Amino acid sequence: MHGEIIAIGDELISGKVLNTTCGFVANRLFCSGYLIDKITFIGDDLDAIRRTILSAIESSEYVIITGGLGPTSDDITNEAVAKALGRHLVLNKAIWGKIKEAEQHLGRPLPLWEKLAWLPDGAEVLNPEGHSAGYLLIHQDIPFFFLPGVPEQLENQMVQQVLPRLKVLLAQGLEVRQQTFKVFGLSETEINLLFKDLESSQDGLSIGYYPNSPEVNVTVTVKGRDPKKVAQVFDMASKRIEELLGRYIVAVNEDSLEERVGRLLLKNGGVLATAESCTGGLLGQRLTSIPGSSDWFDRGVITYSNRSKEEVLGISHETLSHHGAVSYQTAKEMAEGIKRLAGTNYGLAITGIAGPSGGTAQRPVGTVYIAMATPERTAVERFHFPGTRHMVQALAAETALDWLRRYLDYGTYVPGYRPARHTK
Amino acid sequence: MHGEIIAIGDELISGKVLNTTCGFVANRLFCSGYLIDKITFIGDDLDAIRRTILSAIESSEYVIITGGLGPTSDDITNEAVAKALGRHLVLNKAIWGKIKEAEQHLGRPLPLWEKLAWLPDGAEVLNPEGHSAGYLLIHQDIPFFFLPGVPEQLENQMVQQVLPRLKVLLAQGLEVRQQTFKVFGLSETEINLLFKDLESSQDGLSIGYYPNSPEVNVTVTVKGRDPKKVAQVFDMASKRIEELLGRYIVAVNEDSLEERVGRLLLKNGGVLATAESCTGGLLGQRLTSIPGSSDWFDRGVITYSNRSKEEVLGISHETLSHHGAVSYQTAKEMAEGIKRLAGTNYGLAITGIAGPSGGTAQRPVGTVYIAMATPERTAVERFHFPGTRHMVQALAAETALDWLRRYLDYGTYVPGYRPARHTK
Repeated sequence: MHGEIIAIGDELISGKVLNTTCGFVANRLFCSGYLIDKITFIGDDLDAIRRTILSAIESSEYVIITGGLGPTSDDITNEAVAKALGRHLVLNKAIWGKIKEAEQHLGRPLPLWEKLAWLPDGAEVLNPEGHSAGYLLIHQDIPFFFLPGVPEQLENQMVQQVLPRLKVLLAQGLEVRQQTFKVFGLSETEINLLFKDLESSQDGLSIGYYPNSPEVNVTVTVKGRDPKKVAQVFDMASKRIEELLGRYIVAVNEDSLEERVGRLLLKNGGVLATAESCTGGLLGQRLTSIPGSSDWFDRGVITYSNRSKEEVLGISHETLSHHGAVSYQTAKEMAEGIKRLAGTNYGLAITGIAGPSGGTAQRPVGTVYIAMATPERTAVERFHFPGTRHMVQALAAETALDWLRRYLDYGTYVPGYRPARHTK
Repeated sequence: MHGEIIAIGDELISGKVLNTTCGFVANRLFCSGYLIDKITFIGDDLDAIRRTILSAIESSEYVIITGGLGPTSDDITNEAVAKALGRHLVLNKAIWGKIKEAEQHLGRPLPLWEKLAWLPDGAEVLNPEGHSAGYLLIHQDIPFFFLPGVPEQLENQMVQQVLPRLKVLLAQGLEVRQQTFKVFGLSETEINLLFKDLESSQDGLSIGYYPNSPEVNVTVTVKGRDPKKVAQVFDMASKRIEELLGRYIVAVNEDSLEERVGRLLLKNGGVLATAESCTGGLLGQRLTSIPGSSDWFDRGVITYSNRSKEEVLGISHETLSHHGAVSYQTAKEMAEGIKRLAGTNYGLAITGIAGPSGGTAQRPVGTVYIAMATPERTAVERFHFPGTRHMVQALAAETALDWLRRYLDYGTYVPGYRPARHTK
């Protein structure tokens, strides 16, 4: 099925904002077996929107349109759609009710929000529970999906509403099976090399790579007319990918590394406490982003200053002055200190130089020590992470989480990210 | 000058790869005063390329086309251009010479590379020194720039070749001035209402809104042919926007709220320590994402469990059992506790119910207490944040940071986000 994506918004063509949502939409469509012939970015311009929609009718079997559905004066998608397709705007009572409810709740009027309730005649609202409506409009047998441009809403509606409906609307007996492996510790190229023979071995099998730093998403898709054959190829390919990637797979599909760590802790009767320096809370933030994390996460400390490392974690002044804050010894004492203080059975600690300044010849920017204290012992590794401050912090937190996952799942003390040669 | 960008390559529409180069090209054009009306991504498809080029002739004053210039069989841009514009492909001797030189150097033939030397009649090569040629073709007075899709080459040729030539070709460049205000505490609609009269008051002035949760980005753009007039309108509009938004502006352009908080602390001789419960490290993570934050951030604690609140921060057992972990009193003791422990002059604390579970009738999901301890006193406010766990956490951290910014900059204890009615 050939379709196109139209993204609307002045910010998209100004070059001020990097648009990643279209990539997400394209990727989801592709992974579900729908082809995209064209992606067009245009501004909040009545005539441009109208022309682009009319041209889509000529060439596409389905159309995804994002953006321009908000309440402000530059949001003109609905008006443009109505013009392009010769339809009236009609007040949608369900949405209008939601808006009035929200007004009562706030105790003040939402004057511009009424606009959100005026949709082109024939629009079927995708998410009647929200008041930022996405909708489906079928015109000349072509499904047009209109979605909000706000990434979180867009991604949510794409997965929960658009894909299931497309499957019904464009049902032509094409069977699609798909699975995404989230991988950490191998580069895209390394993964690609591993799979070289696999992809060409089977009809209807394709493997997509989507770097989602610091992880790489590997999506296996199998399409075909024969459901049995598709299932067979899919099972073979999934199994082979699991073998090839092994412990580098940190999560599958909607699961995440931090969710998996949480489940493994729960299963092992483990409770975790963290001590962070250069990641400044990122590790704690990722863990506590999971609902129910209080069951397996007790506390964290962000010991950013040297004094706080002494005062909070009881790292000796001697350790800090002799070995330095970024050292094997300090990392070890941090992990053991937080585990002891919190009375937990697991402690994770990170100390390093995220940059851009603070590097030395011995310890350049990107040098990070990670320590993992388990009920058995404390392991420490030195890493050298590349990239910006942001990347070093992200890689350090991911490596620490992944290391704990590997220990909890396989009992191994070998981290997924390759340690630096000098480990002391 | 209105133009468009056409990016060619199957990988761009497959969703397998996230394209960032078009954002770069758009940004460079915009910053140099050239407007872009449209960005189109299409595959390596002869007919699609031909149609898109023909349509560009109808609507654009200049066109940038990237990709499909390589040596492999799927690179068909030159062929498509020749067809679309009715021109022959002609062997470019300079490029052909380069290719043969490279062959001698390698000691083996480069069979497919000859293709790179066959360019549409009239093409002017932009970088005669390289053999991955970009070129300029002027057709019906419209400059078409063809550039390689490889990001590094593309960005290089864009800056060194395209922009200087565009300046000469489109001599009456449009003057553009632009600024982005990052706003917190007002909704998109509220901002829009404030600006209702402003936008229509001046020619060439436009105001764009881009929700960048939990902030809203407000971009003021002024375009025109008369640089003096543009500067005048821009200064007037910027000043007016600053007046209208006032303290709700948390940062301007590339600046961020956390960077501003850092600078204000530094200026005031302030050092901050944080105590987080429901945000789980997000506050610390945002602060320490700023290079040099060790100058004004001492430490943070993530006291997730009740026991950790007692042990780490010295919150009394009575406070926790009588008032609860999510209470005015606990938030106050958390902020004062971390300030005292760290020996800093500022303490920020957050405790609340991020959800999805854990809410009660008195304290529903989204209830968050934030406390700010300053050298003078400790202020506490109760908030009710809407949305998912992720949104509640993001709003809580933003509100805390913004509150400190307002105190440091204006000496006020009034937060930017509206507190809930019951503040105890």
